[in-house]
Amino acid sequence: MFVIITYDVEEKRVSKVHKVLKRYLTWTQNSVFEGEITEGKLKKCLASLHNIVNKQVDSIHVYKVQNAKMMEKTVYGQEKNFDSMFL
Amino acid sequence: MFVIITYDVEEKRVSKVHKVLKRYLTWTQNSVFEGEITEGKLKKCLASLHNIVNKQVDSIHVYKVQNAKMMEKTVYGQEKNFDSMFL
Repeated sequence: MFVIITYDVEEKRVSKVHKVLKRYLTWTQNSVFEGEITEGKLKKCLASLHNIVNKQVDSIHVYKVQNAKMMEKTVYGQEKNFDSMFL
Repeated sequence: MFVIITYDVEEKRVSKVHKVLKRYLTWTQNSVFEGEITEGKLKKCLASLHNIVNKQVDSIHVYKVQNAKMMEKTVYGQEKNFDSMFL
């Protein structure tokens, strides 16, 4: 399945959240990760995030589509490849 | 159709981008809007954004699914209703 994960977390937790998501998905925009993932791996990813975030103030949104073909993505402006910025 | 729009724009253009998006979609998270929209209205929305953003540095991602039922959304932590914060 294809997922988009967007997050809005307090500054002190951003890098931890980022490190977890980077293990499973592609960083495409500030606070946005996306990619193909299995149900099992998504569960593991979310369990790791569960241990990091403060549910009283932070928010993580997970958008799932069973088939990436159902989703059309268009980029306007810069398509940042963050991963290459931190080699 | 259902769309998610995420944006990563320079600080000086954030409020203008935000004002445009608020006319068409719901603000659900920092730099994330979503909602049902017609093709025509999405075109108008993107045309307005086109006049605001600097395509050399800013980035706007538009994710489209034809039917909202194809998309499953889960929120972990706070489901912020930004709109009510600025009445």
